[in-house]
Amino acid sequence: MASLEDAVVDQIRTAARRVSSSYVRFGIGDDAAILRSPRAGRELLLTTDQIIENTHFVMGRHPARALGHKTLARGLSDIAAMGGAPLCFLLSLSLPESLGLVWLKQYIYGMFRLSKAHGVPCVGGDVARSGHFSAAITVVGDVPRGKALPRAGARPGDLLFVSGSLGGSALGLLRLLEGSRARGAAVERHLFPEPRLALGRLLREKLKATAAMDLSDGLSTDLARLALASKVKAEVDSAAIPVFLGASGEQALHGGEEYELLFTVRPGVRVPALMGGVRLSYIGRILPGRGVWVRTPRGVERLEPRGFQHFRR
Amino acid sequence: MASLEDAVVDQIRTAARRVSSSYVRFGIGDDAAILRSPRAGRELLLTTDQIIENTHFVMGRHPARALGHKTLARGLSDIAAMGGAPLCFLLSLSLPESLGLVWLKQYIYGMFRLSKAHGVPCVGGDVARSGHFSAAITVVGDVPRGKALPRAGARPGDLLFVSGSLGGSALGLLRLLEGSRARGAAVERHLFPEPRLALGRLLREKLKATAAMDLSDGLSTDLARLALASKVKAEVDSAAIPVFLGASGEQALHGGEEYELLFTVRPGVRVPALMGGVRLSYIGRILPGRGVWVRTPRGVERLEPRGFQHFRR
Repeated sequence: MASLEDAVVDQIRTAARRVSSSYVRFGIGDDAAILRSPRAGRELLLTTDQIIENTHFVMGRHPARALGHKTLARGLSDIAAMGGAPLCFLLSLSLPESLGLVWLKQYIYGMFRLSKAHGVPCVGGDVARSGHFSAAITVVGDVPRGKALPRAGARPGDLLFVSGSLGGSALGLLRLLEGSRARGAAVERHLFPEPRLALGRLLREKLKATAAMDLSDGLSTDLARLALASKVKAEVDSAAIPVFLGASGEQALHGGEEYELLFTVRPGVRVPALMGGVRLSYIGRILPGRGVWVRTPRGVERLEPRGFQHFRR
Repeated sequence: MASLEDAVVDQIRTAARRVSSSYVRFGIGDDAAILRSPRAGRELLLTTDQIIENTHFVMGRHPARALGHKTLARGLSDIAAMGGAPLCFLLSLSLPESLGLVWLKQYIYGMFRLSKAHGVPCVGGDVARSGHFSAAITVVGDVPRGKALPRAGARPGDLLFVSGSLGGSALGLLRLLEGSRARGAAVERHLFPEPRLALGRLLREKLKATAAMDLSDGLSTDLARLALASKVKAEVDSAAIPVFLGASGEQALHGGEEYELLFTVRPGVRVPALMGGVRLSYIGRILPGRGVWVRTPRGVERLEPRGFQHFRR
């Protein structure tokens, strides 16, 4: 009888065959995958992320299909934040023996539905036994040479924007952990985040965004990273933050796993309210100085990073 | 006070800065790393591997420095088996809170000593909390277009070779688990395998090897994979197998984690006994048919794959 490991590898191999790409010369099945070089004038993007049981999700609360989706979505979101196009991905899974093939099939289904939707094939991986479930994903992408959207490019005078609305993922997670049976919009938002790939490319091509990053750990934490990398001060207008319907201000400011794009543009750039089907909101500006500040009716105060950080929860 | 996660990221960032590469445009610190395209006429290699506590090693028996070395060595070995050159790597770590920074510093030291020795920088990663230690590594390499050494290229008539000697890693693991204090050659062999990068390139350039793979799961298991991929039969001469001093025949045939190269060449190719400082041994030949067979004084019998396989130990 085949081992669980073999069965999972078979499932992945079959699912991977359904997604083709002209970049892939050889996918799963050798010591390494072979990928054609990007087209002339482009350079490579590489990003890696993990989804770990009890750190990023709770078995029994988070459906397998959603976890498969999110494993890949996290990596694709990083490529989106660079203004790039994803080419392929590699997957490492560590599986407890207790985990059944039914669960794993759902996990793989969720991942490869997204893989197919974006034409991003799986070209390799590693499946091993472990005490609990974890997945590590590496996504390879490309971008025109010298055009990747950095975190460090924001300059004083730039205007600060965010895509979509914030707080929905934190609200959805709360509902999920409370055991809510109803699958409302917030829970969907938490389970199936949509990587903003089309938007990322438009930010680079049309808006010439000066800096961009994806919101994985919460606005307060990620904006602090952008400001630190760019050596600038960011001032957010609290009234301007687009809050997900039903979410609190706290959830919008600090809730993680939004996978929306935070970006800056030079003053004078005309930013449409809707781009690639996604809402864009002006939320503040970049100034000389350091740190993140928030303007409220009470005045301007420091915005402490209180988003998701491992070992600190 | 900084979290363990932050401290580890700082350590990795510092270690990564000491290894430079003209391929890397931007390493750690943004949503994704940016890598220049390979030189004209080359294509990319991508491989991913894991090292998981209690699956691949035992905490307290395997020194941290050796685990750091092996995490990267596994990935480099895959690139060597393709005849390629490694360009950079990405690292995902999941860490139990109980693990101290002293252990992690040793782990990082072991990894980056190898990284520096081969000029292969770390360009990104992800560090997260978990119930036990695991690492996933992705190595990016390149190779002249169409020249990668495949598993599937062996043809009837080809001669079968292996580098180094076999069984040492299995013997070393046994000694380590028995609690041996003496650090003999076999234990060193198990803890610090040397990826055969120079040899892999020579196999491609000088010997025009028809097929190659690295021995990670044991000769019997990996040779079966090569024969299956190439749709041929492999016949090993038991007397010809180069056995590590002190190792048993069983350990040489089935012991995993050798990271030596198994390869085939067309008949008539002159294979030197020593190449790039590594011993090469003729161990058998490729025939029409299927499966792996071993020739002993008693005759020819099937060699069952009994190397390391997850979920089957």
